Amino acid sequence: MKLIEGGINAPLGFEAAGVEAEIKYKNRLDMAIIYSKKPCVAAATFTSNVVKAAPVMWDKKLVETSPFVQAVIVNTGIANAATGKVGMGYCKDTAKAAAEVLGIPENAVLVGSTGVIGAQLPMDRIKAGITKLVAAKSADKADGTKASKAIMTTDTVNKELALKVEIGGKTVTFGAMSKGSGMIHPNMCTMLGYVTTDAVISKELLTKILKADVKDTYNMISVDGDTSTNDTLIVMANGEAGNPEIKEGTEECEVFTKALHYINETQAKRLAGDGEGAEALIECKVVGADTKENARILAKSVICSSLTKAAVYGHDANWGRVVCALGYSGVQFDPEKMSLFLEAGDKSMLIYEDGAGLDYSEEEASKLLSEKEVRFLADMKMGHEEATAWGCDLTLDYVKINADYRS
Amino acid sequence: MKLIEGGINAPLGFEAAGVEAEIKYKNRLDMAIIYSKKPCVAAATFTSNVVKAAPVMWDKKLVETSPFVQAVIVNTGIANAATGKVGMGYCKDTAKAAAEVLGIPENAVLVGSTGVIGAQLPMDRIKAGITKLVAAKSADKADGTKASKAIMTTDTVNKELALKVEIGGKTVTFGAMSKGSGMIHPNMCTMLGYVTTDAVISKELLTKILKADVKDTYNMISVDGDTSTNDTLIVMANGEAGNPEIKEGTEECEVFTKALHYINETQAKRLAGDGEGAEALIECKVVGADTKENARILAKSVICSSLTKAAVYGHDANWGRVVCALGYSGVQFDPEKMSLFLEAGDKSMLIYEDGAGLDYSEEEASKLLSEKEVRFLADMKMGHEEATAWGCDLTLDYVKINADYRS
Repeated sequence: MKLIEGGINAPLGFEAAGVEAEIKYKNRLDMAIIYSKKPCVAAATFTSNVVKAAPVMWDKKLVETSPFVQAVIVNTGIANAATGKVGMGYCKDTAKAAAEVLGIPENAVLVGSTGVIGAQLPMDRIKAGITKLVAAKSADKADGTKASKAIMTTDTVNKELALKVEIGGKTVTFGAMSKGSGMIHPNMCTMLGYVTTDAVISKELLTKILKADVKDTYNMISVDGDTSTNDTLIVMANGEAGNPEIKEGTEECEVFTKALHYINETQAKRLAGDGEGAEALIECKVVGADTKENARILAKSVICSSLTKAAVYGHDANWGRVVCALGYSGVQFDPEKMSLFLEAGDKSMLIYEDGAGLDYSEEEASKLLSEKEVRFLADMKMGHEEATAWGCDLTLDYVKINADYRS
Repeated sequence: MKLIEGGINAPLGFEAAGVEAEIKYKNRLDMAIIYSKKPCVAAATFTSNVVKAAPVMWDKKLVETSPFVQAVIVNTGIANAATGKVGMGYCKDTAKAAAEVLGIPENAVLVGSTGVIGAQLPMDRIKAGITKLVAAKSADKADGTKASKAIMTTDTVNKELALKVEIGGKTVTFGAMSKGSGMIHPNMCTMLGYVTTDAVISKELLTKILKADVKDTYNMISVDGDTSTNDTLIVMANGEAGNPEIKEGTEECEVFTKALHYINETQAKRLAGDGEGAEALIECKVVGADTKENARILAKSVICSSLTKAAVYGHDANWGRVVCALGYSGVQFDPEKMSLFLEAGDKSMLIYEDGAGLDYSEEEASKLLSEKEVRFLADMKMGHEEATAWGCDLTLDYVKINADYRS
């Protein structure tokens, strides 16, 4: 596996663009296109929220029923969520407009929206944006980056990625872009994430690999515990690499799965670390759990704890809040048996054992907590299962950003 | 039912006191006693956190096995949680010291602690505090208030209450005191809550009434989603009112149940409204749900949503976040059918219907959101069950308080 420069349009046959369409704000990239010259198989996971945004419903139906997909049109500023039948109609209108300009079927066009819930899309500007996007799209790295930047909202960091692997004697390339900073607590998937690849792979196998992988990647992050109405993760494969089709259980399948896992984990961590107002990425690794599912629940409980998040922000080694969060997770364990370590970089401190705190240096602990990436390692001493979850600290800026969002 | 002046020592035969014992801080009341001249039956509910503080384990055992209780000793500053076997020994030492001075059995002394997790109690100061408490205790209103103030930590408001009802021709009095401001997301019960009454009632019936009532009171509030290690709610009845014993299913039982419900709901709302840094109490009332449990889950999901809490802080009628929080609660419903109202005082605005937002006045909505008590009323239109939950806004001060707590 080799990381390469570029993003969503790095794989063969993919083009992308980002343009200013003034959906809600002026002078910022706010519409993006991903386009594949060849039809793609697609796999996707979506929010488990009962209140699903219109584009989520549109994409879900398309991925399930359409023979292939070939383009994605995304806007920021307005989420097209809780917009009733009108909002659903706008998805169709968007797909239709893009299909006409691109000369592809309407049901090959996925749509994505992110932004404020409840407002309706300005369709004239969406349509004008599509025209600009189709004219601008290219395989250039710069246009991939523009697409990735166009889907950012309160994100402070552009989150794109590309890598290459060797499969069946051919070079297979992956590209990815994701956005998300607030309302991040994916359940089946995150806000908006797109992955492209030129691999030859069936829709069934791609779907199977994706659904298994999100459990340990996108579903293990949280910024604020709020599961969005728009969570969408789509993987598109157009087969341009020309590798022999990837089959389940083979070494080639493992290479593909690992590459996709690397992309999903990297992007998920980036979302958590760039949480609204965040100053630090908090990682909680749980080892020695009795079941994999319990390991996941325990790890996620810690990174979701407001008090743990605030303590990290204050560089305060208030480990009691971590032990407390493990305790209310719903998983049974013996607090007298487990151990808790505070870690950053290659430094590790044992801070809790035998049911009580140890006599560690508060100064040293506070130094670890000042790092950009802070890790809590909990050894439950019940078995051999492990899981990792990622979140971020709870800062004054998180509150400022979210008390102000719509105004 | 008649509200009266006073608090925890208002019922006949109860005494209380609060003193400065310098457990963690100087110049503040930090130890309290509740004492009944006569033996009491007691009912209690405790935290569901796997990591239970030592006093929770002590009290749980006592309430389950001791023939009667007669005193409670509470300290603030240190929670005696995650303190291992040493911490458990301190509960016994505290009970023993109090039992000796009061001349009652050791297993009639309940203990309570609240404060930082992980630190050990300074037992010499605890013992000195007990001596002062026993000397100071009285039935005076002022001493009841001192006891209530002594259990406050980051609370900004003293939460005590007393009321009278008529049962079987006799006046039965209730007294109550509660504390809690952060780490409030009770599951079975809240941080620390104590209720006294001079009613004649069996332990079995008292337990049954209490367990049913907390589901709609203490278990329906949240400040930050963190279920504490110390949650404790204890009701003590000493029988001094001389009423005929209250029997299940009678009118007298209903009067008693309503009085206890009024106390629990009032105290629970006070905890939510006085959440760390809070500027507003957020109430979410769900009506028209298919089951009572679903109504509770929906209501609680809204008052736990960080984004809804931040929006209220910003006086921003971002109703999309409320609909989103209902949507990820885990309860199935039809977003196209439900209605959402924003309310404060006697004002009510319909803001969401038929799957989309309405054209309401943002200015008027913002005015409602500036009130001290803000209410979201969600009509699910699925049935006839309802539930109410209470939380508070997420403010800059919440983060400041919790980034600094231990320092």
